[in-house]
This record gives sequence, C-alpha cells and structure tokens, in this order.
Amino acid sequence: MSEKMTTVRQLEVTSPVPADIDIANSVEPLHISRIAESLNLSPDHYDLYGKYKAKVLLSVVDELQGSGDGHYVVVGGITPTPLGEGKSTTTVGLCQALGAFLDKKVVTCLRQPSQGPTFGIKGGAAGGGYSQVIPMDEFNLHLTGDIHAITAANNLLAAAIDTRIFHEASQSDKALFNRLCPPNKEGKRSFANVMFRRLQKLGISKTNPDELTPEEVSKFVRLDIDPSSITWRRVMDVNDRFLRKITVGQGPEEKGMVRETGFDISVASEIMAVLALTTSLGDMRERLGRMVIGNSKAGEPITADDLGIGGALTVLMKDAINPTLMQTLEGTPVLVHAGPFANIAHGNSSIVADKIALKLVGPGGFVVTEAGFGADIGAEKFMNIKCRYSGLVPQCAVIVATIRALKMHGGGPQVVAGKPLDHAYLSENVALVEAGCVNLARHISNMKGYGVNVVVGVNMFSTDTKAELSAVKNAALAAGAFDAVVCTHHAHGGKGAVDLGIAVQRACENQTQPLKFLYPLDIGIKEKIEAIAKSYGASGVEYSEQAEKQIEIYTKQGFSGLPICMAKTQYSFSHIASQKGAPSGFVLPIGDVRASIGAGFIYPLVGTMSTMPGLPTRPCFFEIDVDVATGQVMGLS
Amino acid sequence: MSEKMTTVRQLEVTSPVPADIDIANSVEPLHISRIAESLNLSPDHYDLYGKYKAKVLLSVVDELQGSGDGHYVVVGGITPTPLGEGKSTTTVGLCQALGAFLDKKVVTCLRQPSQGPTFGIKGGAAGGGYSQVIPMDEFNLHLTGDIHAITAANNLLAAAIDTRIFHEASQSDKALFNRLCPPNKEGKRSFANVMFRRLQKLGISKTNPDELTPEEVSKFVRLDIDPSSITWRRVMDVNDRFLRKITVGQGPEEKGMVRETGFDISVASEIMAVLALTTSLGDMRERLGRMVIGNSKAGEPITADDLGIGGALTVLMKDAINPTLMQTLEGTPVLVHAGPFANIAHGNSSIVADKIALKLVGPGGFVVTEAGFGADIGAEKFMNIKCRYSGLVPQCAVIVATIRALKMHGGGPQVVAGKPLDHAYLSENVALVEAGCVNLARHISNMKGYGVNVVVGVNMFSTDTKAELSAVKNAALAAGAFDAVVCTHHAHGGKGAVDLGIAVQRACENQTQPLKFLYPLDIGIKEKIEAIAKSYGASGVEYSEQAEKQIEIYTKQGFSGLPICMAKTQYSFSHIASQKGAPSGFVLPIGDVRASIGAGFIYPLVGTMSTMPGLPTRPCFFEIDVDVATGQVMGLS
Repeated sequence: MSEKMTTVRQLEVTSPVPADIDIANSVEPLHISRIAESLNLSPDHYDLYGKYKAKVLLSVVDELQGSGDGHYVVVGGITPTPLGEGKSTTTVGLCQALGAFLDKKVVTCLRQPSQGPTFGIKGGAAGGGYSQVIPMDEFNLHLTGDIHAITAANNLLAAAIDTRIFHEASQSDKALFNRLCPPNKEGKRSFANVMFRRLQKLGISKTNPDELTPEEVSKFVRLDIDPSSITWRRVMDVNDRFLRKITVGQGPEEKGMVRETGFDISVASEIMAVLALTTSLGDMRERLGRMVIGNSKAGEPITADDLGIGGALTVLMKDAINPTLMQTLEGTPVLVHAGPFANIAHGNSSIVADKIALKLVGPGGFVVTEAGFGADIGAEKFMNIKCRYSGLVPQCAVIVATIRALKMHGGGPQVVAGKPLDHAYLSENVALVEAGCVNLARHISNMKGYGVNVVVGVNMFSTDTKAELSAVKNAALAAGAFDAVVCTHHAHGGKGAVDLGIAVQRACENQTQPLKFLYPLDIGIKEKIEAIAKSYGASGVEYSEQAEKQIEIYTKQGFSGLPICMAKTQYSFSHIASQKGAPSGFVLPIGDVRASIGAGFIYPLVGTMSTMPGLPTRPCFFEIDVDVATGQVMGLS
Repeated sequence: MSEKMTTVRQLEVTSPVPADIDIANSVEPLHISRIAESLNLSPDHYDLYGKYKAKVLLSVVDELQGSGDGHYVVVGGITPTPLGEGKSTTTVGLCQALGAFLDKKVVTCLRQPSQGPTFGIKGGAAGGGYSQVIPMDEFNLHLTGDIHAITAANNLLAAAIDTRIFHEASQSDKALFNRLCPPNKEGKRSFANVMFRRLQKLGISKTNPDELTPEEVSKFVRLDIDPSSITWRRVMDVNDRFLRKITVGQGPEEKGMVRETGFDISVASEIMAVLALTTSLGDMRERLGRMVIGNSKAGEPITADDLGIGGALTVLMKDAINPTLMQTLEGTPVLVHAGPFANIAHGNSSIVADKIALKLVGPGGFVVTEAGFGADIGAEKFMNIKCRYSGLVPQCAVIVATIRALKMHGGGPQVVAGKPLDHAYLSENVALVEAGCVNLARHISNMKGYGVNVVVGVNMFSTDTKAELSAVKNAALAAGAFDAVVCTHHAHGGKGAVDLGIAVQRACENQTQPLKFLYPLDIGIKEKIEAIAKSYGASGVEYSEQAEKQIEIYTKQGFSGLPICMAKTQYSFSHIASQKGAPSGFVLPIGDVRASIGAGFIYPLVGTMSTMPGLPTRPCFFEIDVDVATGQVMGLS
C-alpha cells in the first residue's frame, strides 16, 4: 500500500468553486508511471502516451488470472433533466474518497468522450469542480486515438462495401475471380486466409481455387449486396449535421452508381460497441468479422469477413483495445475506455477496462464504473448486456440524484436555456422533492431486482435544504435502498464523498445475492423487449409493421438469442421525453428493430434517435485556443 | 559519440532478400529512448508513444538556438515510372550508411504515409529490403495520430462552414448577434477573442459589442458565404471513391439546403500542407486562421478565423506539430512528420522536423530529407517553397535512378501490371539506358541551378550490368553531377550505400554557393508559373479562361506574392504522362488556378488531379490480419 500513498495528493479547495478548467490547470498531474506503479504495474505492462496517459496492455489480465477481483460498483442516475445530475462528477468524487481518504485501492472506469460535443454545445466530460480527471484537455481531445481508430476502421469498411458493389456490377464472375484470386508467377491461385471464412459459410470446403465449379465461383465472388438493405453508415467525430443524409457516388468515374446514405458521429459506430463489449483480441477479431452490413438480394446477411476485411479492421483496432490510464485531481487512477452511444448502443465503458481494474485493485479494492443516462437505460444495459458478456458481478449500484432534478420530476416548471432558473429550484420545496422521488424509487426497485445493493448519492447544491435532503433519504430507504448519502465532492473533492464511500463499502461487503438478469437469452425477441418495457412501467408494447418484419428476419437469420439494447429517449421512463416522474400504464411503441451483430445485440427503436448532432450558431470552438507561448489550451469547458 | 555507437545494430543479411515484412519483423527495435539518448535528448525533450515512437517537442529548437546545423541533403528522383526507383529505400539506406558505417550523426526525415494506400493498392512506405524504418506496422498505421488530427480539424472547419450558412439563412442580424455575443448574467455582452480578428479585418476597432451600429452588426455577423465559391472539402484517410462527389444536407432538418461537394484523402487537406510548412506553434495558429474557405457573395475571401475557429483548429493540431522519432533497421534515428500531396501540395516532410534534426546532428552531421515524386516536382518545391519558408539551405541534392526506369525513359516498352517484364528490362541494353539518361540529365541540370551539388544514386538491381551502370555514371558526370554512385542498400543495408554516403559527404563539404531560387516572389503569378514551366522544358504556357480569372482574383485579393506549387502529373516533365525522357518545346496548359492561403502557395492545375484514390477489386486489406496469440500484424506490405 505504500506506493499508493505516494500518488495521493492533497487538494486545497477554495470557495466559491472556480471554473473547471481553472481547477484542472491548477494541479500539476503526476507522471502517469507513478500512477501505474501505485497499481503495481511495471513498465512492461503499459505503453506511455506522453507524460500523463498510458495504455495498459490487455495481457495484464492473463498475467493476473489467478488473483482475485475487487468490489465492482456501477454508477447510474435518476432520469436525466436539463439541470444535470453530476453522474460523472460523483463517479470521480466517490473514487477520490475511496482512494485518498479511505485508503482503498480504487480505479475509476470512464467512457472516452466524443470530440463532437467538446467543440459543439456540451463541452468536455471529465467531471467537474474538485472531482475531475486530469489533464482535462488530453481527456477531451484525441486521448490515445481510440475514436480515431474506430473512425478509420468504420470508414474503411464503408468504402469496401460501395467499391465491392461497383466492381461486381462491372465484372464477369471470371474477371472477379481472376482479381480476387490472381495467379502467382507460377500460375497458381490461392485463397487469402480471410476467404476461408466465406467459403465455410457457403459450405465449400475446397482449399484450391482452381477446383471450384463455375457455380461455386459465382457464389464465392458475388456478395450480391442489396444496396437498399445496407445499414452500415460512415462516421466522423464531428458535429456535422449536413452529413446526416447525403448522396454518394456522383462523380463521373462512379458511373451513376449513386446511393443515399449518411454519416453518424463516430461513437455511434458498431465498432465502438464492439470495443466496449469485447473480452480479448481474439474475441474482437471474431466480432469485427461478423458485423453485418446489410443483406444479399437473396436476404442472407453479409458480414465484414464476406468482404475480406475483418482482419484489417482488427489491425486498425489493435492498440485501441488497451484502455488508457489517467488520474483524478487527487491522484487516484482512472481507466478511460470506449464510449458507445447510450441509446442505439449500450452506453457503458469497456469490459476489458473493468476486468483489468478489478484485478489491479484486487480483493478489498474497488472498481467504480459509470453507466450512461438514467439507470433505466445505462445501468439496465450494464446488467443485461455488459455483465452478460463479461461474466462479472457487481455488488453495488449507486444512483445519483439532485434535489433540483427530483423537483422537476415532481412537477417543477420547465427549464429554458438562457432564462434564469425558476424560484422553485432555488428555495425549499419539500413537497416537490417528495413528489419527484417516485422517479428515484422506481430506479432503486429496478436495480434491486438485479440482486445488488443500491446506494443513493445525493449530489448536493448550496441551495438544497436539510428538510429536502432528508426527504430524499427517507424516500430512498423506503424504496429499498441500502443507504442514501448526501455528498459535496464538487465543492470539496473526495473529502465531500467520504460518507458515500463508506456506504458503498458497506453495500459491497453485505452483498450476498447472485446477479439476476431481467430476462433470459433463450426467449423470443418480443418477450425480451416486453420484459424491459415492463421495467419502464409500460403496460404493453406495440410493434410497427417494419418492426414486425425485422424481428421475423432476425429470428430467421438466427440472431434471436442476442440481448436487447433499447433505443429510447433518456428523458423519461416512457417513450415521451416530457413525461417526468414515474409514468405507467403506457404502451411502448417499437418503430423499427435493428441489430449490431458483431457487438452482439438487437436494438429496437422507440422513436427516432439522432445519431449526428449539429453545431449551434456559437459553438464552444469560439472560446477555444492555445496560448502559443506556453502551449496551454484555453477555453475548454 | 559513444551513445550513438550503442544504438547501431549489425544487420545479418541473407540472399535472396526476404519479404519486407519478414525483414522488419526479424529485427527487435531498440526502445526509442535509446535512440533519443543517442541524439542527446533527455526525457523532457520528448513524449513517448509506446516503446518505439516518441514525439520530439518543438521546444528543442529554441533550446538549441545557439548551436550550429548539420549538413542538409534532399533526396529526389528521376521522373517516376511504374518500375519504381526506390527513393525512400535509398533515403533510408544512405542514412544507415552514414550512421552505422561512416560514424556520422544522421537523422532521416520522412513523410508520414497515408493509411488509404496501406489498405488499398500500394501498401506501406517504410522503405524496403534491408533499408527500412521499423516497426513497419507502427510507421504505416496511425503513427502518433497526426493525420487523424488533421482529419478532425479539417472536418470541424467543414461542419462550421455549412452550419454557419444555415444559421445565417434562418436568422435576422439581431438574432445572430444575440447568439454570437450573448449577454451574460449581468446583461453585458463581450466578444470572444477570435472575433477581434474579424473586427479588425472589417476595420472596426470597438471592443464593446453594444457600441456596434446596426450596419456594423450586420457586417460582423454575416459572412454571407457564396456556396458556389466554397473550396474547402471534407477529408478522410481512406480510399473511398464514392465520396469524390456527393450531395450533403439532404436531411429534413437541413430544410433543403443541399450542396454538391466531396471528400479528399486526408493528406490532401490544406491543414497537412500547413503542418509541413509551419515553423512554430504561433506561426501555425496564424496560418490555420488565415486559411481561405471560399468567398463572400461580394468576393471577399472568408477565412477560418472569420468563422471563429482558428484557435480550435490549433488546439486539435497542437500535438501534431511535434515530429515522431523512429529508427531504421540499423538503429539510426528517423523523424517522421507530415505528408502533403505532391501535386496539389508540395510533397515534402515538415520544416520543423528538418530544423530539429539539423540542430540535433549539429555541425558535421547529416540530415537527409525526402522530396516526393521526381525532382521536377518534389525537389523543385523543396527549394522554392519549403526552403523559402524555412530559411534553410541544402548543400546536396541526391537524385535516385534505376537502370530499368532509365530504359523506359529511353523508349523501352510499356510495363503492364500482371504481365511478365519485357526482356529489355532484364538483359543488357546500353543504348536504351543512354537514351534514357536525357531525363536524368535535365533533373541534374535543374538541381544544379539552385546552387547545390548533385549526387546521383543508382539503386542497383541484380540484372543491371557493368556497362549499363557505367553509362549512367558517365552521363551523370557529363550533365554536371558532382558524383554518381551505384548502391546496393536494398540487398545489403547501409553497407551497400557507403560509397553514396562518402560522395554525399564530399558534396556537402565542397558546397560553396548560396541557394538560388528559380524565381523571386515579387513578380506576377504568371511570370512565376512561366519560370517553372521553362524548367520543365516548355516553350510557353497557355491559360484557360478560368485560370485567367483566378489569377486576376488572387492578384486583386493580394495573394500574388506567394510561391507557386504546380499540380502536374509526376510521370513526365510535360503535362502528358506518356512523354518519357526529356520532352521540350511543348506549351504547358494551365486549366485552373487555386490557392492554399494558410499553407502559403498558389497551385495552378496542369490537368486534373485525383485527390481521392479508390480501392481495387482485391485491396491489400485481404491479406492483413493480426495474429491473435502474439498480437503481431500480418500481411502488411
């Protein structure tokens, strides 16, 4: 434990709390090798990326195979409101408390933020106040290149799809075969290794290309992709709304082969979901290869490996599979890794980061991992998708709430950007808080259903009153929470979350039940959707014709055994964002059903999800610049 | 020198020469900190990116301000042919000779390859045989993320352009002003720092937004971009031909604001050219801010800073400005940095890498930097653009030639991919070689015009005969070369280029003339174009109507003092790729004239230049995979 002590840093806090960037810049981070050392990592276990970031090699898991895991804690939230709940801040603050004040080994596991919002509306995502990951600019920009690798891999696959259709359209079977398996100098043809995957799928066991019958040649060389079935889109880590819907192939050389498609933001790529759910390099190779990009005209799913590209995608992603080590303001370790969308994907950081972290902290230590959005979305998917693939079992779920947000759930007035906050949010109103606790209560009860102990963390604001705080505490305990604790880590750093840390420790040590999934995998797609809808408070589910059709197709294609990843608004338990609190009795409409076969889930669409944000008239980038004398980044928020 | 000795590695060569990837994988690279140490760099001077790459911080130049520079050598080639000249291989081999056999301090400066060709047709670009940069996979993939940073910055600017037009179209002056300079809590407005650049351009010296007259508000908030004038395109580091020409803005939220545009490959971005030509962080900030994206409807150039984004672009590029240190097979240091297109841009690696390298090797040491394509394009731009901006003076130009390529210039038969090589290239034909030397001779004479000593390096193949090699040597000396040397570094590593190393050393030590540019900057655009055309052998220049118009516009806008970057086919001195040898008397047609104002050059188009390659039916990616047991990359070529 002695090495760990050396990385812990005393924070000097001031009041009022300065701007996030000023706090972040006021602390000189430790060299990341010091943080690594505190986790007993030797230089062979990681690759440095500058002085304050390191990629921890996945091989660490194999090396520590025999040793035990630490406690596993997931942080979710109540249903989000425009007022913010401070979930990331609480995740960081809790870890600063455990590491810097309670003398525990602890690792925080966070998602990598997208650069789109950093330059657009939202700003960065490194926590806030005295609970932050530093250096804040490195956290928010490029990091160690994982999202760039995803963009590169996603778009290489996209280029391969259109080009393959183009070449198939203009060449005979024989010409295609000649190019795909060209004879060498001695006139002998051979298959590339990746081609055996397609051959096997076609039921062809021959290994010599020259032995293929003309019919087999045709089956082998023609993917015969139905352009209208292509679900694979291009991606970019930029808020570029003009790419949402585009027409490609309008150059003269593309001979009129135009097609309507579009770009998503990079974190919406299936490859991001694959990165988050994979468990090893070999597993990632297989998942990337079996990603389905669309169907053949005969209705067969076409995969990345059919295009011969699964290996190349893995090569592009081979460094991205290693999580990035950083540190909090108080010198505790953080692993940043993956950041899939929380609606069309599962919104959780990576399995491999959690696995590495659990071994590194060991028995008695803590790994705190954040799930996106409210607990109905992020934490539900943490349990039913992420833990299902990882085999890991959490002991405690933290649910973060604020008095303000609960007031809104209790019927408080709408919040309008740019207008002053309504009086109701700034002065005591216990009744509004109590009314809003129905939202918290349903999240608690849902989480308890998984067999974990639930601890509520109330992220306190200076305007909150004792009576309001105790109303939340009472409601939480009444709903079955293990404990409910007020915390002030935004203003005080880890010191402000010590009570939360103690509660989480007790919750973990008193956890005795096995993990209970919400649904088994071997039931039908509809049954699974209905189990999740029920947890939202829905009385039933309604399927569009398109949804019915897709469910039938996926079932026929053999994909019905996958877990379900609901793409629903995060702003309500229901499908209607304005329904705060705990709506019930509604019928959940499923408009469409899609699948990320490589990542390993089916995702029903409850409404339309935007997968490419836009820029406002005055984006964050107006403030962002570099001090050319010092090299310091200015204006990041 | 003792540290340097420790990094030099004995190569064991075998014959026949194994595949490039097998040679690369057979050598265990040194930890890059060892290479850094051999250059007297302390850990404060660089950031590690894994074990085999490090970014050398630009501040090293300031620190070594007082110390002298080494010899500066540029490597160009004869006019390229499909047979290949091995220019990168020769650049690496020469450095291996200087460093590992002639006991000189040496740094090789190379361009970062694009990932597009790596997965497309060409394969990697790390040299070949026993003259390579290692690790080869890291060199060819991601490197330290510079090209990804360029992609991100380029596309953020693109998104900002379309979104700004969109917001201006739907908002009144007052609404735009309200959003661009929103009042704070106290009701006070302020300008973002970057806005003062636009205000200054508009001749408005007020610092309080509230004091602007309605007319000034309108001028300030309305860029009034003419969509048909936009020259800024999006980029992607992927060979995606279907993005060459696209229509954007077809989503319902974009309200019919569709526009035809397209993607270039990332290395064609002006930001890549800026990176290659910048001299400091402050200089990069200014160049990025003054990049022109199109005109206002009134014909005024609109810059990145008008859009408020120059600072944010610099932040995205702030790590990319530091070159990446790697090593050759024989343990000599390499700086990899920037890789602009060699026709629409200037095709040379960065000024900052060369500057750092010249200080690190110091007096008596050598920096060898490669220029793209033939010497008529890459080396011409090296002299007239790169050296003009850097103030650096080369002592020696190496021109690489092969017997095969010279035979083609002498009238040898066409080479067809997939067909066996014609007999003429495989057996002795001195006459053909002699005839082809007219190409070499013109390159020599052009290079001599800059006041440097010219050394010809003949990259030898096993089929070359003594008589052929001596024919080249005679022709080179007759054309004014300082020396002409046969080298076998592909088969033997540095040992095979020792004679070339000695010749280069002598050439440098005997160089006495100042650098003479081909044209001064203060003449007209047309006069500069004509000076370059003359060096190609042209008897005159013909301008299209469009070219005339653009020359007039750029002159009116005040950009006529910039150097010229010809966008011409690399396969001939003339504009007709099939004209081998040394054509003359032709009239060079200028179809259009464009400008990269931030990078700092005007580029006339001699014919159409493709700025987005495509994928063949069987791209390189079919062979590329990772060994999931060892993590080793397979199939890269």
